[in-house]
Parts: sequence; C-alpha cells; structure tokens
Amino acid sequence: MRMYDIIYKKRQGLSLSKEEIEFFVKGYTEGSIPDYQASALMMAIYFNKMSKEETFYLTDAMMRSGDQIDLSQIEGIKVDKHSTGGVGDTTTLIVGPLVAACGVPVAKMSGRGLGHTGGTIDKLESIRGFHVEISSEEFFRNVNEIKLAVIGQSGDLAPADKKLYALRDVTATVDNISLIASSIMSKKLAAGANAILLDVKVGSGAFMKDFENAASLALEMVEIGSTMGRETIAVLTDMDQPLGNAVGNSLEVLEAIHVLHNRGPEDLRALCIKLASYMVLLARKTNTLSEAEAMVVEKLESGAALEKFKAFIQAQGGELAVIDNPQLLPQAKYKKNVLAAMDGYIEAVKADDVGLAALNLGAGRETKDSVIDLAAGVMMLKKVGDPVSMGDVIAELYTNDESKLESAMGILNSAIAYTDQKVEKPKLIKAVVTKKGIQEL
Amino acid sequence: MRMYDIIYKKRQGLSLSKEEIEFFVKGYTEGSIPDYQASALMMAIYFNKMSKEETFYLTDAMMRSGDQIDLSQIEGIKVDKHSTGGVGDTTTLIVGPLVAACGVPVAKMSGRGLGHTGGTIDKLESIRGFHVEISSEEFFRNVNEIKLAVIGQSGDLAPADKKLYALRDVTATVDNISLIASSIMSKKLAAGANAILLDVKVGSGAFMKDFENAASLALEMVEIGSTMGRETIAVLTDMDQPLGNAVGNSLEVLEAIHVLHNRGPEDLRALCIKLASYMVLLARKTNTLSEAEAMVVEKLESGAALEKFKAFIQAQGGELAVIDNPQLLPQAKYKKNVLAAMDGYIEAVKADDVGLAALNLGAGRETKDSVIDLAAGVMMLKKVGDPVSMGDVIAELYTNDESKLESAMGILNSAIAYTDQKVEKPKLIKAVVTKKGIQEL
Repeated sequence: MRMYDIIYKKRQGLSLSKEEIEFFVKGYTEGSIPDYQASALMMAIYFNKMSKEETFYLTDAMMRSGDQIDLSQIEGIKVDKHSTGGVGDTTTLIVGPLVAACGVPVAKMSGRGLGHTGGTIDKLESIRGFHVEISSEEFFRNVNEIKLAVIGQSGDLAPADKKLYALRDVTATVDNISLIASSIMSKKLAAGANAILLDVKVGSGAFMKDFENAASLALEMVEIGSTMGRETIAVLTDMDQPLGNAVGNSLEVLEAIHVLHNRGPEDLRALCIKLASYMVLLARKTNTLSEAEAMVVEKLESGAALEKFKAFIQAQGGELAVIDNPQLLPQAKYKKNVLAAMDGYIEAVKADDVGLAALNLGAGRETKDSVIDLAAGVMMLKKVGDPVSMGDVIAELYTNDESKLESAMGILNSAIAYTDQKVEKPKLIKAVVTKKGIQEL
Repeated sequence: MRMYDIIYKKRQGLSLSKEEIEFFVKGYTEGSIPDYQASALMMAIYFNKMSKEETFYLTDAMMRSGDQIDLSQIEGIKVDKHSTGGVGDTTTLIVGPLVAACGVPVAKMSGRGLGHTGGTIDKLESIRGFHVEISSEEFFRNVNEIKLAVIGQSGDLAPADKKLYALRDVTATVDNISLIASSIMSKKLAAGANAILLDVKVGSGAFMKDFENAASLALEMVEIGSTMGRETIAVLTDMDQPLGNAVGNSLEVLEAIHVLHNRGPEDLRALCIKLASYMVLLARKTNTLSEAEAMVVEKLESGAALEKFKAFIQAQGGELAVIDNPQLLPQAKYKKNVLAAMDGYIEAVKADDVGLAALNLGAGRETKDSVIDLAAGVMMLKKVGDPVSMGDVIAELYTNDESKLESAMGILNSAIAYTDQKVEKPKLIKAVVTKKGIQEL
C-alpha cells in the first residue's frame, strides 16, 4: 500500500477502505508518512468529503492510535460530557456536581489548552490549594466515594488526532464536518466512558456558525458513538452571545458557585440543568428526561450539588472557605466599566469578540507558554434582548495589567450592537440529536 | 502575509494576487514555507484551478527563483525545443542537426533524468568519447561556429519548480494543466531562448492521454510564452504508440543516424522535418512554413544535416567512425525476438508498456543512482496498421542482463493488440497552437 495511491483515490472522489485509512493513521502517527502527504490528503478530503464508513474508520483508527483509558475500577455507568467550545462556557464546573449529586460517577480528565480563557483545570486552580496532580488510585477512589474527580490529562490519548489536528490547523483543512467529528470522538472514545453527552455550540462564538453545520456535526458524532457501542446524545446550544455573564477563570468559578447556590444567570442555570438531566438519563438513573430533570433540580435546590462541589474541592486540596467567601479568589487590580452607547435594546453581543477582549485582558493563553491572569476577564452584565439606557454599565473589564484596558474596551464596544426595537431573547437549546435523529426544540 | 491565508483563499475558490503567489514561491524556495503547506495549496489548486493571470504569476515567480541563462553571446535568434516526453522520442538528435544546417543556432542544455530511457546526454554518450563537460566559452563558441552544441545542465534553473514538482509528484497534485504549464515554461523561460517550440505528446505513452487536455496545456503554454515576449508554438503529436522503432539509448542514436542518412522510420522522419521547419520559421530564416519545410528537406536530402551532426560530435570529442559503422555503438549481449501471436493487423502498440519493457531491460533509470545499460532496449518493428502473419518478428528485445528478457517479453506482449480488420495508421501531427489559437490538422 502506498500513501500516494490513497491521496490519489480520495482526490478522484472514491471512498477509502478500512485498510487504507488504518495504513494512513498508523503511518502518520509513526512518522513514516510525512506531513506533506497527510496535508494533501486532508485537502482532498475537504473537497471530496468522507462517507459515514470512512469517518467511522478514521475515528476508530485514531482512537486506537494511543492509550485507551480503562475506567472499569469505577462503579456504575460512566458518562462523559464534551463541549465543542465557546465563550464563558462554565458548564463543567456546575454540571459535574449536579450529576455527581444524582449518583452518576464523573471521572473528568481535563487539559489546559489555548483559548479565550483557560481550560477547566486553570479555572479550578483559581481556588487556592486545588490541584489535579493526583495518582490514578486516588482519582478512582475519589470518583467511587464522592462521584466527582478531575485529573490532569495523562497518557497518550489519540496521538494521531493530536498530530493531525495540529497539521490541519496550519493548512486550512480544519473545517470539514467528518474530520471534526472524528477528531472529537476519537479522543472521547479513548477516554473510556460508557456514554457521551455532546454540547454542540452554534453561533458567532462557536466553531459552527450556523445551525445546519452544527446539526450535521452532531448527527455524525452521535452516529459514530452509537456505532462504537457508546450511547451518545448531542444538544445544540446557542453561542451567538457568551453563556452566563462571566468570561475569565476566577470570574467563571465565582459564577459557577453562584449557580450551585441556586442563583446566577438564568441561561447558564437552565443549560446546566438540561445537560445534567441528559447525563442522568444516559447513566440510567431515571427512565425519562423529565424524571431526570426533576432529580437534578431537586439536587440543586436542596444544596446537595453544592455539598458535592465542596467535597470535591476539599478532596483535591482546595480551600473550602472560597465557597462562602468569594473574596478569597484571585482579584484583579484594575476594573473598568463599559457603558451603553444609547437608549434601546441590546441586539447582539458577539461572543467571539467578548472572548477576544477577555484574552486581551490576560484571561487566556495565546501560546502554550503564556501565563494566565486568573483574575482577568469580562463580566457581561447585559445580554441580547435586555433594555438599556445610555450610560448603563453593560460590562465590566478586569485585569492586573492596566495597559490592556484600553484595547479590550475597544474590542468589547465593537462586540455590542444596539437597536431601538424590542429584541427577543435567543433560544438557548436549539435541538437534541439521538441515534433516532434530530429533534428541533 | 500568511501562507495559511493563501491556502484558505484558494480553497475558497478565489484568485491569488501576484504578491501572494510571489510570497509563496519565494518562501517555499527559501524553506520558510514548509512542504505541508505547499502540498495543501497544490491540492486546493488541483480542485479550484488557477486563472490565466495566476498561472502567469506562478510561472514568472518560478522563472525568477534561480539563475536565468544569458544567451546573448550567441548570434541570431535562439530557438529552444521542448518535448513533454514520450517513448522512443529521439527527435532532438535529428532536429538539432537539421535546424543547425539551416543556420539556426541550437544551444542545448540537457539533463539525464529518470524515465524509460535516459535523457539526450545519456543517448549521446553511447558514442565513445562524446562528453558534455565543456566550458561555457567552448559551448558558446561551438554554437556560433557549428550552430549546435550540448552542455550538461549547470546553474540553478527555476529551483522553485524543481522543489515544487518533486512535492507534487508524491502528493498526487501533478495533473493540473496550469501547474504543468507553469512548471515547463518556468524552466524554458529561464533557459534564455528567444523563441520556443513545444512538442506536446498525446496518447497512452504521454502524460496527456487525450486531445482536449493536451490542447489546453498547449494553449496555456503558448499564452505564457507570448506574454513573456518569447514567440511560442506548440505542436500536438501522437504518442499512442512509440515514435520510430527504437526505444533505448544506443538504439535511438543508431536510428537518428539512419534518419540523418535520409533513411529510417517514416513517422520519425516526418515529425522531425515538421518540428525543424517550425524552428526555422521561429528563427525567421524563412517567411512561411512551406519555405522552411523545403529548406529542411533540402538539408536532409543533401547530407548537410548529417555533416552538421558529424561536426557536432567531433567538436565534443565523439568517435566519428560511429556514423558509418554503427557496430561501434554499445552492443547488447542478449537479443530476443517477439513474434506475432496471430494473422491480422496490429491494432495498438501501447507506448507506455513498450517503455516499461525497455526500462525493465535496463534502458532507463528507476532511481537517480541507477546505472543505464546503454545497449538495452526495444526495436518495435511493427506498428499500428501494419499487417502481420503469426510468427512474424514484431519486436526485438536487447539487454546485457539475460535474466530480464522473460519479464520484458511478457510486458511487451501485453502491449500489443491484434485485429483481423484493416486498421488505419494514426495521424502523427494532430494540431498546431500559436498565439492565434489552435488549428487542428
């Protein structure tokens, strides 16, 4: 078998066989197939697409390219959640305790990553003393006892995907639905959960800008998961504007604590309840979604979820006092208010620009070696549909580097559109995809 | 400017600007743009094509990526000839002396190359003593005095094309008309001739398998040449079966000598006269093609072209006795006849398979370091349309490695198709392309 023939075949619009795809993934991971042939194949796939079978073979081969986590030491049905990424996406910190309180084991492997803000680990490290450097024995014990633990990503999960994604990122071959689906699913499948809930973001702040593409991606991922024997559900959720109010690491932790106190922004609270309910359902703790939802709401309102969060933080060395005294979280030295430019209604809050402002203030990493300012970020106080009067505070900027306020202010102002017409609030959850198909909500 | 954006733009089907193409060619030649981005761009070009302007910018940038030969020391209009390559393509050895005899300077820079048989230099080195390692002073002096000299390719002509072609060759991105046209023309333009005659081969043994593609390629190349101020004409010629009878190095030299003696295969003779006539016309030695043709035929029939060949061989150290005593050329130890399998007519002689048989016998290089067996090759005695009786010798195989005869015999037999119906001889010259357009013949 020759890589040349595989590129040629795909270029001609033919489907690759299981053997050909495995040959490519193995050779590329080992380094016997060079980057320049892999990028040519990716571009040919961009133009000629992949069939369902090819996408499945690619996912399967990438999943098997490295370690596959064995979660058998954890009791019960393990459900993993994955978000395709957006701005102010604090859901993991809330959904984790919610489902753990329902008895669903949450064994979270997480990374730091690049982006507008840090990853889940960065956010949690806003809490003094909290650490993810725990042994796998401790990790499994904590999940069995508390039902919730987070560990830094160890091992070599889907190295083929890691290498291929880095290549696609610099060769303009990222945006193909099948390639995205296989990239996400190969990692999720290697991570070992029995069932998977996917939060597919749609809108200006998400990778998928429109509903059709997001739906296609969700359908492909659910099909892959189901074919691999892991029950998979995807929800399509709005990311035209940031989720909740907070965009930044300690700001999002604070917001998560608010929600677990049964306060906090309504959109974030509603989405977390919905995501948690699907996870409870996937874990077979209830027979219907409405039963799951009732259980989740009870755990939130009774404070059981908050108690779970406390137990989790304590087990991993975090300072518990933070929960009741948010002043103990990292505080920014500088704060600046962004004011409404006119009377009327907020028509749009471009999520990607808000994320960019937060990144500029120091909340995220531009390169692997950047140091995050945990206190930096944006509090987006007004959202789409909110009425405003000129001069109202619509957002707050936080940073420890005063020189960054000016440019962040400019970016944030350009993120906001006003209108004098009443604006409807966007629908937060747009559709649900199961193996039976898509159901628009 | 970022290479990513250039790939993305072409992927989206937009046209690249002159500046973008120059940025790419410069960066790729220098090594600041990696192979994996270049191959992604090539695949995007394969799918989205290039406009005439883009093709011209690419040719121009590649031409300027290295040395540009200065032929001003040679008197008169310098006309270069390029063949897109085929099997048994001995024309250079014949056309050179023909046009030199008409007073047109032929300053040939040649390479060795890979292929079914060696390059022009390999073929000439079948003549004992002949060498191309001459100084540029000697080269220019010979061209001015004899009107014909061959020198090994020196300098760094169009290094961007060299690097890019090697990449395209392993990433299935060779067969795009605009990329082929710019590759050929960037080298020809850098080689410094005032006018260019292109012999575009069409058929099973050529890179261009059908007339439409060959015509498109010819039109693009003629347009590029004309835009660059070098008068360019292309002829489209048949390569469904090998040209002439000989496929092999010393076999082709012998055949060339036959033609210069005004003997030899009719198709090869006719094509050489036509090519030489266009070169004489391009060099403005006559006003019309028919005048040029009359002059060329006269030089052939009078023996003037043969005398030119002798002077050229002598000037570069070759043993002149070879001309009258072909036994002095390298002789193969082993010979095997291929016999007709039935009574009837030759319906097809697949040129690529005949080439492959010659390669198998040792006539060509499979890798850069292969040693050529100069005596090896195929004499294709029967051609399309010839009547045969079962058992007639239709071809002769020559080699110094007896073990190779068997497999070459198999390949050659599979190259031949027979029929019991009379078959028309294929038309040798199919069309002519000038800047005025294409004229089918």
